[in-house]
Amino acid sequence: MTVPAELIGGLSALLGERVSVVEAIREHHSHGESYHTPALPDVVVFPKTTDEVSAIARLCTAHHTPMIPFGAGTSLEGHVAALAGGVCIDLSEMNRIVRVSQEDLDATVEAGVTRKQLTDELRASGLTFFLDPGADASIGGMVATGASGTTAVRYGTIRENVLGLTVVLASGDIIRTGGRARKSSAGYDLTRLMIGSEGTLGIVTEVTLKLQPLPDAVSAAACSFPTLEAAVDTVIAAIQLGIPVARAELLDERSMDALERYSHLGYPIQPTLFFEFHGASEASVAEQALTVKEIAAEQGGGDFKWATSLEDRNTLWRARHEMAYASLLLRPGCKGWATDVCVPISKLAECIRATQLDNDASPLIGPILGHVGDGNFHCIYLVDPDRPEEIAEGKRLNDRLVERALALGGTCTGEHGIGHGKMGSLLKEHGDLVPVMRSIKRALDPDGLLNPGKIFAM
Amino acid sequence: MTVPAELIGGLSALLGERVSVVEAIREHHSHGESYHTPALPDVVVFPKTTDEVSAIARLCTAHHTPMIPFGAGTSLEGHVAALAGGVCIDLSEMNRIVRVSQEDLDATVEAGVTRKQLTDELRASGLTFFLDPGADASIGGMVATGASGTTAVRYGTIRENVLGLTVVLASGDIIRTGGRARKSSAGYDLTRLMIGSEGTLGIVTEVTLKLQPLPDAVSAAACSFPTLEAAVDTVIAAIQLGIPVARAELLDERSMDALERYSHLGYPIQPTLFFEFHGASEASVAEQALTVKEIAAEQGGGDFKWATSLEDRNTLWRARHEMAYASLLLRPGCKGWATDVCVPISKLAECIRATQLDNDASPLIGPILGHVGDGNFHCIYLVDPDRPEEIAEGKRLNDRLVERALALGGTCTGEHGIGHGKMGSLLKEHGDLVPVMRSIKRALDPDGLLNPGKIFAM
Repeated sequence: MTVPAELIGGLSALLGERVSVVEAIREHHSHGESYHTPALPDVVVFPKTTDEVSAIARLCTAHHTPMIPFGAGTSLEGHVAALAGGVCIDLSEMNRIVRVSQEDLDATVEAGVTRKQLTDELRASGLTFFLDPGADASIGGMVATGASGTTAVRYGTIRENVLGLTVVLASGDIIRTGGRARKSSAGYDLTRLMIGSEGTLGIVTEVTLKLQPLPDAVSAAACSFPTLEAAVDTVIAAIQLGIPVARAELLDERSMDALERYSHLGYPIQPTLFFEFHGASEASVAEQALTVKEIAAEQGGGDFKWATSLEDRNTLWRARHEMAYASLLLRPGCKGWATDVCVPISKLAECIRATQLDNDASPLIGPILGHVGDGNFHCIYLVDPDRPEEIAEGKRLNDRLVERALALGGTCTGEHGIGHGKMGSLLKEHGDLVPVMRSIKRALDPDGLLNPGKIFAM
Repeated sequence: MTVPAELIGGLSALLGERVSVVEAIREHHSHGESYHTPALPDVVVFPKTTDEVSAIARLCTAHHTPMIPFGAGTSLEGHVAALAGGVCIDLSEMNRIVRVSQEDLDATVEAGVTRKQLTDELRASGLTFFLDPGADASIGGMVATGASGTTAVRYGTIRENVLGLTVVLASGDIIRTGGRARKSSAGYDLTRLMIGSEGTLGIVTEVTLKLQPLPDAVSAAACSFPTLEAAVDTVIAAIQLGIPVARAELLDERSMDALERYSHLGYPIQPTLFFEFHGASEASVAEQALTVKEIAAEQGGGDFKWATSLEDRNTLWRARHEMAYASLLLRPGCKGWATDVCVPISKLAECIRATQLDNDASPLIGPILGHVGDGNFHCIYLVDPDRPEEIAEGKRLNDRLVERALALGGTCTGEHGIGHGKMGSLLKEHGDLVPVMRSIKRALDPDGLLNPGKIFAM
């Protein structure tokens, strides 16, 4: 235990029963959903208000103790591991939707609200929040990692969908960035600086989000292709024509194999695109879909398997979302190591193809799935975390993948963030920027207490 | 002259003839397009490469001399005024389009490229850059102020359209933020931190931009309304229905009067919306336009005056863009003082109405025009800068407008930035954030040499 007893006393005085040093609770808060070694915090606290988070930060700073924000525990690069011990600040009890405006298409939510909770609670309003990273992440966690997912091709990432934040700084000071205006040029963009800062600059407690009207018409379809290149070229052509595709997800043969074993939907084991089209009318959706179908046919794509009813669409997208879990069934008992490069779309087929060759020559299984419109794809390597040679092989493959993506003008992470799993990759990609990031970190968190050991070494 | 002779010598050794101390050149670089008092730099330099900008920054830092980046001189809050003298770095000779990718829908341009130059040079590619702040600003200047304009309602502001930047820091170090991937979660978002930092954190020399396909079908129309509220409610309803309106510009009665005196287009002197619709087909554009026409009719809107041919559209939008100049003709010899608040769209009609009442009770003329979909509008107060009582009255009206906008949940600037004209407003809006901004400024520019006296006092 590295946390002083007076700090525990102070936290208990503040939060009563909402302070835990129970090992099972600490273990639950020691890891995300990936292969990284867990690291237990000394204490877990469950604040209910921004003021409580502020008081916790003041106590931690007074006792020079690390603080690690925790949302839904779905991150993939060890973001929540308490590498230097300290206090895990679990925001799941800050789960109120504070306000929704139908006229302004925006809402303010507490950081612990999850994506599914938000879309469920919004349903009656006629509005929704489309951002969909797959996991039922918390909104605060999505802000922290700069998340995106399947709909970013049309609706943008979390960066483009946040209007303002309430943030508790290491000092305990509460700041409110941005606001409710749709745009602002009022000084430095601290909203965007906080987005993707992974809890190292402040603790996000409230988020004001842009919402979207629920589209009047939606359709979805899956289409198989003879090659990866044909699938990717279909999406490139659709985007160049200005078709506002809402989702365009690629699964390679191995992913389709995993999916079929898990979901039994009867799809061919070929590279497959899952599309979704949104519009203000059936006619506009039909026009989008028809145009894309024609492009796909020119590329040798098979029939469109339509999913127009809500039930059919749910089946289709549930299958896609369960890919991560379906992959795990390819090798029961293993953990998934999800890679996350993103390249210019013109280089996507080349990058995936070279990665498949690498994977074919490796003992590790690595199905591939991607957000094609963004040039972002994931291999899910199945590793036994207790076998160091498998971790080493995952690292070797991932390092090669990152080098490949960087050589093609891409990034080591499209949406998962750096955590402590990709600090080396960040140096390769942005070695010139790390000193600037470090100077900003020192300016905002001079004692280095906010989520230490993440993004870069101090 | 506050600049040491050795610095001038060093700059001349570096740039030869591209260094000027001529008063007319210095005067040209002492102001933007608004009422602010000019402040002359001591020297103006015209670099052609990022390396030259880096060498200039090293020299200025060695001689502890301020440096002020300069684009097209179209800013509105005194951003380029050399308040502490120093070296103005005019980037207009850095005007190359470095690369364009049709497959990836992106381009890299030097900071001095102007908006019109870019769209002209892109024409043959089938791609375009829609961001349109009215003035023929430089891309670097648009990045510096966080610009947007008429198309932001559909295509976003410059924040959403920049993939990466090359930036020269005060030290002369060159950094490359972001990249060519459509999205990235690789550490702090220094791209977005630089956007809107008004040259106070670094000098932007290259910008990688997202482009859009030229839409296959475009139409535009003007529609008069009995009241401001009816016009605003029309746009709110269109957005709620998910109509992807490309432009929705509001001009109030006084603006329409100014426009008619200048352009003689035969529009009624009533609140008027100028719309533009973009689509991948004539059918989709017709559907959008028809839906909006029906909504407008429900609100008592008059006939749609269509402008479907390129020539007619150019006439319509040129008229809108010349509003700033048309306003100046209402009182020849005066300068325009453009306000820039942005409020949640549900509060827009209320905010404009109260502002009109203020204006009606003032001796100053202040036509109003706005980017309705964003909740952003401008009064253009016509002031004689040599009459202190008019500047005082402009300040009084603007201060009241800012207070009104803040009370309604808005911001003091939607797109013009802070410069030195709105430093007091920034404190009102984000007093809690200014200390954080200041600490970031100190971390990146410890000697305070980059565009001093802007955004906040050090």
